[in-house]
Amino acid sequence: MEIQIPTRNKVNFAPPRSFGTTLKSHLKETFFPDDPLRQFRNEKSGVGIVKKALQYFVPIFEWLPNYNLRLFRFDVLSGITITFLAIPQGISYAKLGSIPPIIGLYSSFVPPLIYAVFGNSKHLAVGTVAACSLIIGHTIGEKVSAVDDPTLYLNLVFTTTFFTGIFQTLMGLLRLGILVDFLSHSTITGFMGGTATLICFQQLKGIFGLKHFTTKTDVVSVIRAVLHYRDEWKWQSAVVGIIFLIFLQFTRFLRKKRPNLFWVPAIAPMTVVIVGCLFAYFAHADKHGIQIVGHLHRGLNPISLKNLTFDPQYLPVTLKAALVTGLIALTEGIAIGRSFAIMNNEQVDGNKEIIAFGLMNIVGSFTSCYLTTGPFSKTAVNFNAGCKTAMSNVVMSICMMLTLLFLAPLFSYTPLVALSAIIASAMLGLINYEEIYHLFKVDKFDFLICMAAFFGVAFISMDYGLIMSIGLALLRALVYVARPATCRLGKIPDSNLFRDSEQYPGLTNVPGVLALQLGSPIYFANANYIRERIIRWVRDEEDISNAKDSVVEHVLLDLSGVTSIDTTGIETLIEIRKLLDAKNIKIAIINPRLEVMEKMIRSHFVDKIGKDSIFLSIEDAVESILFSTQKNYQVLV
Amino acid sequence: MEIQIPTRNKVNFAPPRSFGTTLKSHLKETFFPDDPLRQFRNEKSGVGIVKKALQYFVPIFEWLPNYNLRLFRFDVLSGITITFLAIPQGISYAKLGSIPPIIGLYSSFVPPLIYAVFGNSKHLAVGTVAACSLIIGHTIGEKVSAVDDPTLYLNLVFTTTFFTGIFQTLMGLLRLGILVDFLSHSTITGFMGGTATLICFQQLKGIFGLKHFTTKTDVVSVIRAVLHYRDEWKWQSAVVGIIFLIFLQFTRFLRKKRPNLFWVPAIAPMTVVIVGCLFAYFAHADKHGIQIVGHLHRGLNPISLKNLTFDPQYLPVTLKAALVTGLIALTEGIAIGRSFAIMNNEQVDGNKEIIAFGLMNIVGSFTSCYLTTGPFSKTAVNFNAGCKTAMSNVVMSICMMLTLLFLAPLFSYTPLVALSAIIASAMLGLINYEEIYHLFKVDKFDFLICMAAFFGVAFISMDYGLIMSIGLALLRALVYVARPATCRLGKIPDSNLFRDSEQYPGLTNVPGVLALQLGSPIYFANANYIRERIIRWVRDEEDISNAKDSVVEHVLLDLSGVTSIDTTGIETLIEIRKLLDAKNIKIAIINPRLEVMEKMIRSHFVDKIGKDSIFLSIEDAVESILFSTQKNYQVLV
Repeated sequence: MEIQIPTRNKVNFAPPRSFGTTLKSHLKETFFPDDPLRQFRNEKSGVGIVKKALQYFVPIFEWLPNYNLRLFRFDVLSGITITFLAIPQGISYAKLGSIPPIIGLYSSFVPPLIYAVFGNSKHLAVGTVAACSLIIGHTIGEKVSAVDDPTLYLNLVFTTTFFTGIFQTLMGLLRLGILVDFLSHSTITGFMGGTATLICFQQLKGIFGLKHFTTKTDVVSVIRAVLHYRDEWKWQSAVVGIIFLIFLQFTRFLRKKRPNLFWVPAIAPMTVVIVGCLFAYFAHADKHGIQIVGHLHRGLNPISLKNLTFDPQYLPVTLKAALVTGLIALTEGIAIGRSFAIMNNEQVDGNKEIIAFGLMNIVGSFTSCYLTTGPFSKTAVNFNAGCKTAMSNVVMSICMMLTLLFLAPLFSYTPLVALSAIIASAMLGLINYEEIYHLFKVDKFDFLICMAAFFGVAFISMDYGLIMSIGLALLRALVYVARPATCRLGKIPDSNLFRDSEQYPGLTNVPGVLALQLGSPIYFANANYIRERIIRWVRDEEDISNAKDSVVEHVLLDLSGVTSIDTTGIETLIEIRKLLDAKNIKIAIINPRLEVMEKMIRSHFVDKIGKDSIFLSIEDAVESILFSTQKNYQVLV
Repeated sequence: MEIQIPTRNKVNFAPPRSFGTTLKSHLKETFFPDDPLRQFRNEKSGVGIVKKALQYFVPIFEWLPNYNLRLFRFDVLSGITITFLAIPQGISYAKLGSIPPIIGLYSSFVPPLIYAVFGNSKHLAVGTVAACSLIIGHTIGEKVSAVDDPTLYLNLVFTTTFFTGIFQTLMGLLRLGILVDFLSHSTITGFMGGTATLICFQQLKGIFGLKHFTTKTDVVSVIRAVLHYRDEWKWQSAVVGIIFLIFLQFTRFLRKKRPNLFWVPAIAPMTVVIVGCLFAYFAHADKHGIQIVGHLHRGLNPISLKNLTFDPQYLPVTLKAALVTGLIALTEGIAIGRSFAIMNNEQVDGNKEIIAFGLMNIVGSFTSCYLTTGPFSKTAVNFNAGCKTAMSNVVMSICMMLTLLFLAPLFSYTPLVALSAIIASAMLGLINYEEIYHLFKVDKFDFLICMAAFFGVAFISMDYGLIMSIGLALLRALVYVARPATCRLGKIPDSNLFRDSEQYPGLTNVPGVLALQLGSPIYFANANYIRERIIRWVRDEEDISNAKDSVVEHVLLDLSGVTSIDTTGIETLIEIRKLLDAKNIKIAIINPRLEVMEKMIRSHFVDKIGKDSIFLSIEDAVESILFSTQKNYQVLV
């Protein structure tokens, strides 16, 4: 009988790439996954490159030349629609942060113009957001009272905005958009829900018309404060507030039933404000226990450059507020920009967006604005109203300018209770019950991460809730790295495929061969585990095999899924080989990937184990093993 | 012409396992990877189980019944040998931590007895270690001066040891041995090297016979102090020190040349101590500028239970010292126990070792001992001297008892310069140049982690160096999770294998099909990246294809290597499908693993994409695609 030598697919043992090459490729994947230089590659002429670069860094140069009247019609409509949202939101969110309401209006004038020039999302509408307003107010309020020293307080708000802008711009320039990736979807869902719950409860102050309140920001303290100041409760205020709230919730319900009525909830807040103003003006509501916003100056944003305060005494609070709000604002802004871009099948460059946000906050801090980003509600309305380009932000900005120049004093009669109703209604929409239930059903750990943020924010404090939730998410990532899944492979009958024998019951085994697939990556943090796990697989196999009078003679380690290995990992493989050698078990490596193979060559692992023991597929290895046992058998005969 | 329907391997769409099942399996892999209950599984009788359990928790019951005189001969020899190392090491390491030398001797009497009962390594020799002694001295020294208030200082040392013991025992009981895994080999190499360098420089104090010195623990301050106290330099001391150092280094060199002379460097320190004592006694060396250890009490360890100090004022320093030294001691002890076990092809249970260390430190703190673990030098000598069981620790303990009872006063003449020479010589052996060079060659990032620990410890401070190094290592693990490698697959000609086309140049492509292999895991931290990377692969492919007049019609995502996915990951897959759908590109999922498939089913991803689009192998998918285009072609004809 003739023995046929099995044909074997060649493993690539080419010498490792140079350190420079691998470093470059790693840096590129880490910081430039979107390959921003791609568009310059086919450009030959110098002028062309400059033009492309200008268009790349200042997106308005890309879309403005092709802008036309047809697009403008859409943008005017959506721009006006979002102005109707911007005025009440601007006033009410500013109130949340104990910031003068006019600052909220200023913040919808300058930053949208900057964003229109540098931003690259077509649908994002610029504005202030509730969560960040609350955090700014809370953090700065720890150091300076907004009531006792309003000027200093406001200056610190501008300084925080300035730092946020600097921080965001730097992050974008350093391509640190990767940091935003670490805020998981579950964390954001929980954080939004917790913040919304908390803010809803805080609106009880406005709805009951209380004059005194707690400065603490957890649900328990807030409820306690509401009950404590029972004698300040004003029934008139409560009645008006509840009517407004029902009206606002009804308009949302209407949109759900009839999606083409999207503009109803969009103009509802403005309606509430106007009705509230008229009511307050004609009914002299302020004399019946219903507080109003108070005087609003006519005129555009004053320059606030000289108001920035870099006194070291206040640096800790402003820097802390800037860091936290900066990150949250980015997360919200980028996630939202991305979501709407995906609906239209477009790309948004995260790092460029971050720079645009940073620039608009820096300029904002010079012109009496506070932190702006892309709020969800405003952007959704903008998108539904049919905006086509960032021009809708320009339109909103112009509308706001006209408001500031001519209409501002009219809004001074806005009842606080109307603002509270607007905020509460907006917040109720941010608690995403369905998503939370979805998390619970699909992934219990994601649900835990979400709940940590939710309850942490609602019952302890915002930063604590965020840290707990991010900590849990990172812990999971680290535990994953520390305990990668391994599995035992079996052969699918009548095929050459080897698959997880737990997932596919009834697979056949090659006698004497134990094929294992290792999870990725093999790192210092899991090297010990991998060694112990492999020894356990072998032991378990022997426990079974003993009964059947057959022993493990070959262990095949399938590294197809291992994309990375470090020196501790390589040493562990060497140790495993030693351990198995002592039991007379041979080891074979299957399909090491490029990076793994390079390290194996560089650390002389390949020389130690022998090129003969490295195969491109399990099939090759099994054939080679069968061939050698067959040969031995023949020699014996 | 008849079309043959391709036979297709069945994908397992079984309903997901219950939450309880998966949780149990996850917890088992995370905390019990070594399957400690395995040995009880075949035990039927109650007595048998109790016996096994006793043997499991108190290993001495396992080996003592089978102990015999032949084994004892080996253990006596090795026990005596390590005593010769224990006496000078005990005295000199105690000096490092500003602890009275007699405490160092006490620490080699009680703890080894406890370890012999509970420890499960056969080769580990118990003793004090240089790095931890230095950290204890440094941390407690920040709060209480060892010179001004020696009693309080010593009490705090005992308290630290007690906390270390409690901390270690808890860690073992909670199966937190996993924490030790996060100290990578590179970090330990760098930390050891940095500490050794630093300690070497500190010995200049003893060698030059200085009376004053700095309390700072960085190389620059130490060198500055040596130069600053130039007028205290004693040439007599320096000459003696250099002679001793040359002698000690020579014995090490001898062992390298002749491995069977292992006992020479083992007794060399003792020789230096004895020669030093004789020299100091007869030459009245203390009158010629050579300082001696000073009076050593005769007698066994006094009870120190009542000395433990839980005054809240000192808790921060004792707890900090306990935490840091506890972790470092564990790392050293477990790593060393494991290394020697591997040489003999034996298993060491990390969590049981941790409990043994914890118990020996708790009992130690009650009997005037300070932190002990398994030092590398002592264990290596023990192993080389042929020890067979933990009985060698008992022998050392008895020898130490005899020394304390009868010989202690003799050692009071030990010159400090001799101890400095012993420490410096030991430290020189801990700087592992070869390993550092190996790291540099194989993995630049591991080298960086190592250097961070080395220079951090040597030039800044111990904790800072450790934190920097561990931080870098974790950062790498996180970046890995954030940026898993993806690759484009091509078909190896004349086979059915699909492999990375960067690693194996010259692979063929199936027209219109783009096969991508994704790295693992797909998580919130990399979901955005994965989406952008896939879009980029498609774009790049289209850029090439455009020239050849063919377009991508199918994208195959090979998930064979993806062991885990979270909800954000699933949503990203849905988004990718939407994005590609808009470009008229169909998507197929290849070989999702058990856990991934369960999540896909639970989140209804399988329903959305259709079971027809999930294949067990790329080959199946390609055949199915070719078949359908062929059919379409036929229909057209």
